[in-house]
Amino acid sequence: MNGYKVVFKPFDNEIIMPEGSTIKEAIIKSGVDFDFPCGGIGNCGKCRIKLLEKSLPPTPKEQSYLTEKEFSQGIHLACETKIHDNLTVELQKNDENIHNILQWSVERTSNVDPLINKTYVEVDLPSLEEQKSDLKRLKEKLSLKNISYQNIKIKFSALKDLPDIIREAQHKITVINDDSEILGIEKGNTSSKILGIAFDIGTTTIVGYLIDLNTGKELSVSSTLNPQVKFGADVISRTTYANQNVDGIKMMQTTLLKAIDKLIGDTLNKVSLRREDVYSITIVGNTCMHHIFLGLTPRYIAAIPYVPVISEPINLNASDLNLHINPCGKIFILPTIAGFVGADTVAVILATEMDKNSDIKLAIDIGTNGEIVLGSSKKLVSCSAAAGPAFEGAQISSGMRGANGAIDHFNFGKSMTYTVIGDGKPEGICGSGLLDIIAGFVELGIINKRGKILSPSEFINPFAKSFEKCIVTYDNANAFLVVPEDETAHGRPIMITQNDITALQLAKGAISAGINILIDKLAITTCEIKEVLLAGAFGNYMNPHSACAIGLIPKDLEGKVKMVGNAAGTGSKLALLSRTEYERSNNIASTVKYIELGAEKNFNRAFAKGMQF
Amino acid sequence: MNGYKVVFKPFDNEIIMPEGSTIKEAIIKSGVDFDFPCGGIGNCGKCRIKLLEKSLPPTPKEQSYLTEKEFSQGIHLACETKIHDNLTVELQKNDENIHNILQWSVERTSNVDPLINKTYVEVDLPSLEEQKSDLKRLKEKLSLKNISYQNIKIKFSALKDLPDIIREAQHKITVINDDSEILGIEKGNTSSKILGIAFDIGTTTIVGYLIDLNTGKELSVSSTLNPQVKFGADVISRTTYANQNVDGIKMMQTTLLKAIDKLIGDTLNKVSLRREDVYSITIVGNTCMHHIFLGLTPRYIAAIPYVPVISEPINLNASDLNLHINPCGKIFILPTIAGFVGADTVAVILATEMDKNSDIKLAIDIGTNGEIVLGSSKKLVSCSAAAGPAFEGAQISSGMRGANGAIDHFNFGKSMTYTVIGDGKPEGICGSGLLDIIAGFVELGIINKRGKILSPSEFINPFAKSFEKCIVTYDNANAFLVVPEDETAHGRPIMITQNDITALQLAKGAISAGINILIDKLAITTCEIKEVLLAGAFGNYMNPHSACAIGLIPKDLEGKVKMVGNAAGTGSKLALLSRTEYERSNNIASTVKYIELGAEKNFNRAFAKGMQF
Repeated sequence: MNGYKVVFKPFDNEIIMPEGSTIKEAIIKSGVDFDFPCGGIGNCGKCRIKLLEKSLPPTPKEQSYLTEKEFSQGIHLACETKIHDNLTVELQKNDENIHNILQWSVERTSNVDPLINKTYVEVDLPSLEEQKSDLKRLKEKLSLKNISYQNIKIKFSALKDLPDIIREAQHKITVINDDSEILGIEKGNTSSKILGIAFDIGTTTIVGYLIDLNTGKELSVSSTLNPQVKFGADVISRTTYANQNVDGIKMMQTTLLKAIDKLIGDTLNKVSLRREDVYSITIVGNTCMHHIFLGLTPRYIAAIPYVPVISEPINLNASDLNLHINPCGKIFILPTIAGFVGADTVAVILATEMDKNSDIKLAIDIGTNGEIVLGSSKKLVSCSAAAGPAFEGAQISSGMRGANGAIDHFNFGKSMTYTVIGDGKPEGICGSGLLDIIAGFVELGIINKRGKILSPSEFINPFAKSFEKCIVTYDNANAFLVVPEDETAHGRPIMITQNDITALQLAKGAISAGINILIDKLAITTCEIKEVLLAGAFGNYMNPHSACAIGLIPKDLEGKVKMVGNAAGTGSKLALLSRTEYERSNNIASTVKYIELGAEKNFNRAFAKGMQF
Repeated sequence: MNGYKVVFKPFDNEIIMPEGSTIKEAIIKSGVDFDFPCGGIGNCGKCRIKLLEKSLPPTPKEQSYLTEKEFSQGIHLACETKIHDNLTVELQKNDENIHNILQWSVERTSNVDPLINKTYVEVDLPSLEEQKSDLKRLKEKLSLKNISYQNIKIKFSALKDLPDIIREAQHKITVINDDSEILGIEKGNTSSKILGIAFDIGTTTIVGYLIDLNTGKELSVSSTLNPQVKFGADVISRTTYANQNVDGIKMMQTTLLKAIDKLIGDTLNKVSLRREDVYSITIVGNTCMHHIFLGLTPRYIAAIPYVPVISEPINLNASDLNLHINPCGKIFILPTIAGFVGADTVAVILATEMDKNSDIKLAIDIGTNGEIVLGSSKKLVSCSAAAGPAFEGAQISSGMRGANGAIDHFNFGKSMTYTVIGDGKPEGICGSGLLDIIAGFVELGIINKRGKILSPSEFINPFAKSFEKCIVTYDNANAFLVVPEDETAHGRPIMITQNDITALQLAKGAISAGINILIDKLAITTCEIKEVLLAGAFGNYMNPHSACAIGLIPKDLEGKVKMVGNAAGTGSKLALLSRTEYERSNNIASTVKYIELGAEKNFNRAFAKGMQF
């Protein structure tokens, strides 16, 4: 079998690939960051690349996604393009900063009592009469500072260092410890230097918050796209990748850990601090990210009955995962509720204190899965609604993530007005823009209750008349022209097709059904819900009025909607700063009742009803 | 600098050594087992080797230890012989079986409840309604078997294996666990296969007992000389070696661990069992061996105020120490009392139940240090008396260990009779033989109260007359010819010199002073002691009458002496078989009061008195 050289521009990465493999495989093998929204299985038409020098005929699948003009420019789909020659391929530079990543969140204060502390002690000198071991004399002093340290253990590496360090430092040392173990020893008093980083690992984005563990102060925030997007946009396509490739899980874990290790550096660089002063890290994420982070197979989460390997909190040494912080640093991974309600949801509850408040609240975090929690301190129920990636731009003909070029807000007034992220010409529509447009359709009667795009002759609402000329025919059905081709960045029109509306209906139907089934489970009425908490990126960028107009959120609750930003990130920070909060996360994970929608008799009816407008 | 080749016969090991290094250094570097009683510092004259092919002039030090005849045969001292040419060197084969190593011990039964168990469980299948994680379903079943497993943790490597193993085994698995953690998972029911090995690591010898952890039955015993003897006969010379050589502690630890790993294989081979069925190991040993086993520096034990790094029990993964048993196997190291009263003494108390019995008992374990424990369930006090290596044959002109060729028992009747280990011609005298001879001197009046060897004219006891002709002059003083040169294996006479008597007096003076100071500490009289328990090799081979005759043990206690064999080994076995006993060891270590003889005002007086006969 021959090997061919593939060069990726503008990075100038080179890789030798066997004859017949695809550009997608070359991209993954080379480690270049690139986005395969459908996981590279030919279902989205978005992994566009440009062949330089050589030209190839389009494949049948490419013909259904790409225009003649694009072919003439050498544009192809990476997942469809096979390598039969040396190739030079231009990739769009994946600039992380062009993405809107949600970093802000509601703040909650907690008493600072971090998972890892430093304690400065002056150990007694040994005496001939009482030949107490080095460790014993150390523990005596530690337990004077905190009685709970009386039976504290010691990590073997710290024990090995102890005798020399204690003497070199004239018995004045700083102990690094969690509540059960001495993790390390430092000479002198270093107790003022102790940092932690709270991570929220999303399917699409990762955010890290650098915190001073003495003061509880947030020092910096950094975020990045989750580099695993090259293995698929959603958890199911990533799990498929992990299962079908030798070392698939190992490769995905390594990719993730590298990105996190880089983020650690980023947060520190912003404030000129050092990796060796970071002693603890907390991790929240959905159950699939949680498993991949740990290198545990997500195989059994992806298939019925969706069972995780572990749901309890777990902690590891940072060195076990090759994360470069202080050598004695630890990583605390928050617990999960079920295969599709993860540690991120636990963290949202932690941050919003739904479990402590007697008011009934509804929390929603919409991504490719919508995690929904309902209840109060009396009882909390949760579920996961399979929204699919429509809200993140996939499966929508002109859909895209909330990045530069995306229409993020849309308004039907006398004429259509919209805003574009980055203020350039539009390239597509992100989730919040889509919601505004469909809400407009509903309110103007451009679509009917079942979601059909009407012909202008069927319009009833007089205000809809202004938009008659936007109704076009596409794929033998009506479509709505949002931006004509001469006003877009790429020269293709931006439309809403009938298929797009169906994709949105499936997504909002699932969320709506989830909410209604939880309401039934608690045997309450919608009006008993005191607050709707929208967590996560999509919930925070979307217009709540639009969400209620299309029935994603029950209409009665429009006035009760509150954005809580990246509440999962806040939960991660709280756990980092407080043992009590970390322990509470375990309590939350084990008491929140999980409802499997697929096992609910009423689900299909609720789903069908939820799909209507 | 030139390198020369040194070949060791009969092993045919080759090593290249730099010009000017010694044969001793070559032996240590090559890893060949060899005995340096004084640690290779030129103080004993016992590291004899034979140069083949080449001849060298004797050094001044060699002249004081070796005879003309020996020089003519090419005999040299390894520590004195420098390498200035390629050399072929004959070493005596260090056959472990020629040494008498104490393996037997008093047996005590305990309830079998080992430190590591196996539990067979049939885990429930996961269900869609209750999506309990694999771990949760496993823990539910485990806690039905033992309620204390409800909050059991899981080792990360076991967690990684869990999802696949549980499914491949149709949910029928065997869990390997200690009381706090699941260590491993095996398919099907393997609970009948679980072995453990209890070790007693002495300064001179190592014994391993292979135990079936289901039945508590001892399956085999193996023993070996501690290969660290090449770094010195006693703990002080070994600590000196560790401190003075780069990686000294690492090298000593590796040497020890290799010997233990080989012993593991030996115990298993005897009964045709496999390393992967061994799941736990217990370790007892003096504090210095304890530290070296763990790779902790013994530096601060060797110097005032003799402080160990840790005295508490500690456990490690077998893989951390490169011991080849089941990959999830663990090593439990029993606690120590002080720098010179180690885990072996704790194990002796465990085995003899001194801490549970209201009768006052005295336990003595004599090696280069004599560990002494006195008391009852009410109070136990302990001390370590620096006996020096006299009882092990070092510092005695014709002294040797209890190996082939050693006179181990001696009787002055009408004529002198003795027994030799291995039944050949005698080569020297071991500790028990020395005791018998000196006891005879005392009873016959051949030496006076202060230990002076009298001239025949000073003899008072008529029975002493028969031995008049044995009084010879050596080094300007009287000496006693025990075996003339024509009756020994090597053709040199075996004598007791005045210096030998002084060495013995120092040794027995220290032990005697230790016993008396402990008696004072408890404010009791000798007759309140109900039993004298002799533990360890020397205590078990010696004649108690001789020990009392020379005043090593108070004369009033002669009728109360009981041999308890390798009681330290028994303690190690008990801890292996029972959590309760292991926990009791911690209790013993933390409650037995340690008395530092060097800090006692009365010590010098007691020592001077103890030196007399």
